[in-house]
Amino acid sequence: MELIDKLKWRYAAKAMNGETIGQEKIDAIIEAASLAPTSSGLQPFEIMVVTNQELKEKIRVIGWNQSVITDCSHLLVFAAWDTYTVERINKMFDLTNEIRGFKNEGWEKYRQMLLNTYPQKDPEVNFQHAARQAYIAFSQAIAAAAFEGVDSTPIEGFDPEALDTILGLREKGLRSCVILPLGYRDASNDWLVNLTKVRKSREDLVTLYE
Amino acid sequence: MELIDKLKWRYAAKAMNGETIGQEKIDAIIEAASLAPTSSGLQPFEIMVVTNQELKEKIRVIGWNQSVITDCSHLLVFAAWDTYTVERINKMFDLTNEIRGFKNEGWEKYRQMLLNTYPQKDPEVNFQHAARQAYIAFSQAIAAAAFEGVDSTPIEGFDPEALDTILGLREKGLRSCVILPLGYRDASNDWLVNLTKVRKSREDLVTLYE
Repeated sequence: MELIDKLKWRYAAKAMNGETIGQEKIDAIIEAASLAPTSSGLQPFEIMVVTNQELKEKIRVIGWNQSVITDCSHLLVFAAWDTYTVERINKMFDLTNEIRGFKNEGWEKYRQMLLNTYPQKDPEVNFQHAARQAYIAFSQAIAAAAFEGVDSTPIEGFDPEALDTILGLREKGLRSCVILPLGYRDASNDWLVNLTKVRKSREDLVTLYE
Repeated sequence: MELIDKLKWRYAAKAMNGETIGQEKIDAIIEAASLAPTSSGLQPFEIMVVTNQELKEKIRVIGWNQSVITDCSHLLVFAAWDTYTVERINKMFDLTNEIRGFKNEGWEKYRQMLLNTYPQKDPEVNFQHAARQAYIAFSQAIAAAAFEGVDSTPIEGFDPEALDTILGLREKGLRSCVILPLGYRDASNDWLVNLTKVRKSREDLVTLYE
C-alpha cells in the first residue's frame, strides 16, 4: 500500500539541505498531529514550530550539536502539559459541548470522574501520561511527513530543561518531550541514507494468541 | 491529501460488528508498527496479536468491560521491555551488523555508550522510555489501520498487571502499555460514530517562533 511504501522510504535524516518546506505540507503535518487520538480527547500538549535561525542555533547547542536542528526547514517541538488541571480539563469538555451543540449526561459524568482524579495526582505522573499522548501525535506527524515526501528526524537527544528555558515553555505550563526537524535530506552528506533499514524479524516482534 | 482524509475518517470506535479483517490488512498494520522509528533503533517492545475469543473475554473483564475488546477482529497489545539489558541491546546491534554486512566503528562506539548507561538505570525509568517507543509504533499502526479502512480503538483503560498475567508477559520481560482492538465499526450501536470530531483550535495547538 502507498503508506507502507512511504514509511519504508522514511528514515531518520542525519543531514538536511536547508530547503524550505511549502506551507501546505507543513499544515498537513500539523493537522495529522492534531487528528491523532489522545486519552479522553484532552490533547494535553502543544506544538512549537521553530523557523527562527537564531533559536535553532541555540537549540542545536543543547541538542548534541545535531546539524539537522539548524539545517531543517521547520523544527517541531512537542511539549506536554506539566500536569492536568481543573481548568485544562474543563476547557476541553466545554469546547466539546460547544462544537457538538449539546451536553451529554454520560460525558458530563466522565468529566467529573476526570476532575475528581487527574488534578490530584502527582504532577510528574500526569506529565508522563501527557507525554505519551504527545508521542502519539509526534508519530502521526512523522507518518504524514513521509506521506508528503518530507524528511524528518525524530530526536530525544537534547536537554529538555534547557529547551524549556530557550522557548519559555515552563511559564506556559509545558515541558518539552521530543523534537522533530522537518526538511529535505542532504543525501551527499548523510552517512545513514544508503544503509539498509534494520527491523526485528516478524517472529521476534509478534506473538499470536489464536 | 489522502492520508489526512483517512485520519479524519478515523475515530475511536465504541462498537464493532465482529467481522474478521483480512490477513493482508493485518500484515500492513503490523508492518507500519514495525517501520516506526524508535530510540537508537532498539524497537524495545513486542506486539501480541490476540484473536482467541476466550482470551478476549478475559481481557474485557479487566478492560472496563469495553465491548470492542471482544467484538474486534484482532486485539493488538503493545508490550514494552521491562528494562534495557546488555543482551537486548547487543541483539539489535548484532542484527544491524548482520543485515548491513559490516561493522561501523562509530556505531560500535554508540553500542558501548548504550551498554555503559542503559542497563544500569532504574528498570522503571527504562520501562517508561521503552513504553514511549511502543507508543510511536502504536500510533503508526492506528494511522495505517485508518489508511486501510480498518477501525480501531486506542485503549489505555485496562489493568496492565492483570493483562500481563493473562498473556504471560512478565515471564517474557514485557509489560503491557496500551491495547488496540482492530475491526469494523457497528455504526447502529455506536454512540460516538456520528458526533463531530473535536480538536483544539490551531491557535491553541501551535505557537510559531519565526
